[in-house]
Amino acid sequence: MSEQSTPSPLTLAAMGSFHVGGRDIVVSGEPLRTTAFTPHTTVTYDPNGHYTVEQAYVQWFRPARPLAERPVLLVHGGGLTGASWETTPDGRAGWLELFLRRGFPVFVIDNVERGRAGFCALPGIWEGQPMARNAEWAWELFRFGPQAGYPDRPFPGQRFPIAQLAQFARSFVPRWTSTNEAQVAALVAAIRRIGPLDLICHSHGGELALRAAALCPAEVRAVVALEPSGYSEALDPARQRVLTVLGDFLDCDPYAAARTARMRAFADALTARGVRNELWEMAARGRAGHSHMLMMDHGSEALADDVATWLLSA
Amino acid sequence: MSEQSTPSPLTLAAMGSFHVGGRDIVVSGEPLRTTAFTPHTTVTYDPNGHYTVEQAYVQWFRPARPLAERPVLLVHGGGLTGASWETTPDGRAGWLELFLRRGFPVFVIDNVERGRAGFCALPGIWEGQPMARNAEWAWELFRFGPQAGYPDRPFPGQRFPIAQLAQFARSFVPRWTSTNEAQVAALVAAIRRIGPLDLICHSHGGELALRAAALCPAEVRAVVALEPSGYSEALDPARQRVLTVLGDFLDCDPYAAARTARMRAFADALTARGVRNELWEMAARGRAGHSHMLMMDHGSEALADDVATWLLSA
Repeated sequence: MSEQSTPSPLTLAAMGSFHVGGRDIVVSGEPLRTTAFTPHTTVTYDPNGHYTVEQAYVQWFRPARPLAERPVLLVHGGGLTGASWETTPDGRAGWLELFLRRGFPVFVIDNVERGRAGFCALPGIWEGQPMARNAEWAWELFRFGPQAGYPDRPFPGQRFPIAQLAQFARSFVPRWTSTNEAQVAALVAAIRRIGPLDLICHSHGGELALRAAALCPAEVRAVVALEPSGYSEALDPARQRVLTVLGDFLDCDPYAAARTARMRAFADALTARGVRNELWEMAARGRAGHSHMLMMDHGSEALADDVATWLLSA
Repeated sequence: MSEQSTPSPLTLAAMGSFHVGGRDIVVSGEPLRTTAFTPHTTVTYDPNGHYTVEQAYVQWFRPARPLAERPVLLVHGGGLTGASWETTPDGRAGWLELFLRRGFPVFVIDNVERGRAGFCALPGIWEGQPMARNAEWAWELFRFGPQAGYPDRPFPGQRFPIAQLAQFARSFVPRWTSTNEAQVAALVAAIRRIGPLDLICHSHGGELALRAAALCPAEVRAVVALEPSGYSEALDPARQRVLTVLGDFLDCDPYAAARTARMRAFADALTARGVRNELWEMAARGRAGHSHMLMMDHGSEALADDVATWLLSA
């Protein structure tokens, strides 16, 4: 079994987790409610009172012998959680473990409404309904293959472990699209609690991380953005730098092509602003076949090595 | 900061996570939908296709020098996630770390619709709406103090870190009350994947764990049930045993008194069936002051020691 095998022991100085950020909501004027918890237990409860919403959850690990001066905070993409950075769908070590083994203290966030952060079940607080992602949409959005190739005929040379597509789909969680501001606020709260750090972010997490970095020029020293879907160029040229990483098959459909153009334009905008940055297009760097899920692809280990080197080179 | 301090290094042989169980849902006949992901990105998507729902998430850690033959799987209570077993609200090590340090491989589940398992956002699959827990209700349900004492006048000798009540409330997540069967199924899937193990469960997780244990007599050797809210006595007297642990203030209100009576009756039913079991009422054992959140209370470390000793004494 995959949970049995590992290369060598990993010695931690400490591990833990915390919830951070959010705001208080007071509900009043509602009638009592009755519900059955279990076949054994029915309760009547008062829904009026104090709730905390829009907090984030952060799990963290510190290696016994850190090589990096600052921790990394890993920020998941949309419809996903911090589990994206753990074991890959085909059972390899994810970036949480890879960066720990490379001597980085690692913090992993579940942002507002995802995973262990929880979501707001009170009516009227968030706009709209959560949306679910199906496997077909993931196939297209994450550039696994041509639409007609779903579920087992990917692009030639595809590095994503396509045989484990169903396992990967089990990690999808619903998302709202109205919670961006709350997610930026909770990410900022997490950053300020942790202190000086580097961000590694993916997809929708890229927008959140770049906006948070712009709000935290004293804390966020570097942002590694794996195919960000949104941007802030308002970084501090004197203190902050950015690495943008793009996979392969970048122009495989009009949506992908438009996204690619925006990512390249973002790198240009940083350069124009004087922010030190690099744009890594993996195919052009001799590593064809990467999907949107760069941290899960075969070859994610080599990319983690390169990213770690870039972070340590500051 | 709490995430800086720890007694001594913790050496792991391996760590990771997986999603397990669940079932496939195929949606058809729905019109295309358009949504704005971010200010930069609007997409039109097809909601028809394949979804996986009702899976569980499991994170696991193996110590480099295991002292226990079998791992423990930690099963959270209702309206909570696996984070219940991590850092306590006041920053002490939780049972995940305490059992790892005592030489147990530790697996932590986020069951169906909680945490990183994700919930089902497709209409018509689950009955009812998720319910949220407010701080007042937690105060009463978890026996922190008399109703009139909320939020800062607990029962005398209360061991729960009351000053961190607001921090604790950030870990509450919504729950459905219609998903029990799916949660038992996913827990059984997790148990069968892991293999022979002991379960440590809390509150609503107690019902799920005891029902799963009844379905898995070959895999589940022991169940440690911290104030379970539901039961199965259908365990195998030849192979399985149970430790039921109750806190203090057990008869503080009629709801608590009824719950206490059910927990004592459960222990009696096990004994009548010939299932080896112990009932620990913490106040009667000289450790007054425990709340419903036994694994977070001051003194949870001593209780973890006693539970570890009981598990190793088989």
